[in-house]
Formats: sequence, structure tokens, C-alpha cells
Amino acid sequence: MKRYAIIVAGGSGSRMNSEIPKQFLLLANKPVLFHTLEAFAAAAPLELILVLPENQISYWERLRQDYNWHLPHQVVTGGDTRFHSVKKGLELVSDPDSLIAVHDGVRPLVTASLINNCFEEAGLFGSAVAAVPLKDSIRAIGPTSNGPLDREAFRLVQTPQAFRSEWMKKAFLADYQPFFTDCASVLEYAGFDIHLSKGDYKNLKITTPEDLALAEVLVGRSEV
Amino acid sequence: MKRYAIIVAGGSGSRMNSEIPKQFLLLANKPVLFHTLEAFAAAAPLELILVLPENQISYWERLRQDYNWHLPHQVVTGGDTRFHSVKKGLELVSDPDSLIAVHDGVRPLVTASLINNCFEEAGLFGSAVAAVPLKDSIRAIGPTSNGPLDREAFRLVQTPQAFRSEWMKKAFLADYQPFFTDCASVLEYAGFDIHLSKGDYKNLKITTPEDLALAEVLVGRSEV
Repeated sequence: MKRYAIIVAGGSGSRMNSEIPKQFLLLANKPVLFHTLEAFAAAAPLELILVLPENQISYWERLRQDYNWHLPHQVVTGGDTRFHSVKKGLELVSDPDSLIAVHDGVRPLVTASLINNCFEEAGLFGSAVAAVPLKDSIRAIGPTSNGPLDREAFRLVQTPQAFRSEWMKKAFLADYQPFFTDCASVLEYAGFDIHLSKGDYKNLKITTPEDLALAEVLVGRSEV
Repeated sequence: MKRYAIIVAGGSGSRMNSEIPKQFLLLANKPVLFHTLEAFAAAAPLELILVLPENQISYWERLRQDYNWHLPHQVVTGGDTRFHSVKKGLELVSDPDSLIAVHDGVRPLVTASLINNCFEEAGLFGSAVAAVPLKDSIRAIGPTSNGPLDREAFRLVQTPQAFRSEWMKKAFLADYQPFFTDCASVLEYAGFDIHLSKGDYKNLKITTPEDLALAEVLVGRSEV
């Protein structure tokens, strides 16, 4: 079954105290997004689709030229929310019977085995969402629920999130809902079962300066 | 009000693929636990109580001698669970009107401002538990609840967890309950209100090899 990867890179630099959006920060001397796309290209034969905010596309083109970087991929302009951005990427998926992995542009340390495992489990189950157990205790907050919870009853959700293309295409016909925080929530809203797949703590999302510091340590280390 | 810190270091080395318990691993050339105790000693005048498993106490003594390390503290033998270990530490708190901060031995990057803030808020509210928002999406798993959740409705709980000593002393009279995963859950079970205080992502718990790698990067950096 043909494979696609939709890489979503919508972030601005606000949480990093940085003018540069996180996906363009340098990690081991090259932009974070190069690492992410290269990881997918190296994992399996697939078509790469990169979704970027409109005002970052010319910067991306310049980066590619500056670094003489030529990995084949298509670029599409994102929308106002992650849902709309993924939907724009989805329009480039032409094969009706394929598998699609959606991945955060700012998770550059994703491994080939994690990618391929998600694709394979999506082939079996229709969906495969990388997730990891919590390391810390968790509490609910708010007026109605407040108190300690059993952390074993929860999983932190990562990407890749891989799906059969026909499931995704159907699910993304929905009107946008404010609780669409990731693809799994969109597919579930459409009635599809979500299969949780084994994620990886090292597959970190670069959100804060300390995440970038950790990524810098981990990148290139095959075993830690 | 007099201040105590109970540092709980109960871990074995299992999750680190290491023979050496995490609290004794080297971080910037000295044991993790030295960093933790030094952070508390530097933050404010207080009495330090270290709770260790019985079979680690002689190793601890040897480490102190090898490193010629003389920070004043009391050592007490831990119990079978974290609840029992904290309770053993609590027996060394003699002052009836004091503030007690309980802290994980394997959170060596705790800052003076985080420690003092917890003590101050515990003085105001009776309790102050360091907690941070989730960076990742979260899902419930299990037979009855399964699906995406609003991550804003949750907090990941860290330490320090600081309390008025009379609250702690009362709460720890309870019989052990399996959901006593931290002090907050014990105090809450006794009917005391838990005040969540602002935690710090950099105050990481060293559980996996990548945590240690990150700590190695962050230690000594005052600003990242």
C-alpha cells in the first residue's frame, strides 16, 4: 500500500523566546525540519508532504537553497488550525487506497522503526497513534474535578499518527470542532477506532529551550 | 517558621538499565543526590532529612567520604512504599509549628526560587505542590474511559510538595492506601486542600537515560 507522510509545521517562535519558528532552529547544525523530513525519507519509500504557514514558505525555500538541500517533497500552505493544515495536506494524497502518517515538524528525533511500526499497525488496525505512559503523577484541575488520578489510566499522545487514507478522508469532511487537537480526535469524532501504538520518549516535541538542548544531546546517538 | 526538607531517594536502577540507583549516578561529576541536597541547603536555612533504602545507607556513607562531602543532614531508613518512607522522615521533624517540603532525590535541578516559592505558598495556604501544564495531548485508556481529553484540565505533578507540619503529621496517621502516589494524595485523603504551585519543566525527574542526558546539559546553566 502506498505511503504518504504529512509533516505539519505550524509553530511560531513564541514559547522558545525566539524570533525564529521552532521548526527552523538549528539542531546539530541544520534546521529541525530537515531532520524530520530526512527521518521519514530514510524510513520507507513514501511521498512527503510538508504543510507550512503561508508566511514561512519563502523562508523555507531560501533555507533549502542556502543548505543545498534537495530531498523531494511537496509544500502546501497551512490553514488557521492544525485541523485545517492537515486537511490541506490531505488534498495532495491522490491514491485512494494508501496509508498516511501525520507528524509534527518539531519532532525531529523520530526513528525509522517508530515510523514503520505506525504504518504497519495502521495497515492492520486502520489507525496507529504513537503514545507513551506518563512519568509524573497527574491531577485534574478545575471546578468540578480536582484531585489525584491514576496515571496508568492515561497516555501522552505523540506523532506519528497513521491512518488508512479512506478513514482520514472521511473524517476530515467534518466541520471543525474546538477539541480537534490532533488527528486522533478528528478520526474518533467520525466514529473510527483509535489504536494506540508504542511511542518513544526520545521522540520529543521541541517546544521549549530545554527540549532543544536535549535534542542536541540525543541527535546522532543511536543508543542512549 | 522553621523549615524542613525531606528528600526521598528510594529508587533502584531498573529503568536506567543501570546497576547503580539513579540517585547515585554522576551528573556533572558528582552524584545526583549531592546536587539535590545542595540545592535545598543553598535555598534557605533548613534542616535536611534524607530517606534512603536500608541497603543503600552504607554506600551513601562511602560516597560522602570519597567525595569529602560534608553538607549537614540526617539520614533515615525508608519504608516499603513512598508513603512509609516519607513517614519515617516525618518522625525526625520535632518542631510542631514548621513547614516541610518533600522532594524527590532524583530531581537535582530544583532551583532556589522554586523551593522558596513552595515554602512561602505552603505558609500561606497550608500546602503548595509544584505542578506544570502538559505539553502533549493526553488520552484516557481502559475499558470504560477511552478517548481524547482536554489537556488544560490536567497538571503534571512534581516536587517540592510543601505543607504545614501539623497537616502532614495528621495526614500521615492514615492507614496506607494504594493510591498514595505522592504526599498531595495523602494530604487530600485526610481532607486538606491542595494548592498547586507553579512548577518548572527544568525540574526534571531523572528516570531514563535521556533525562540524565538532558540534566547534564542543563546543570550549571542558569538560563536556557
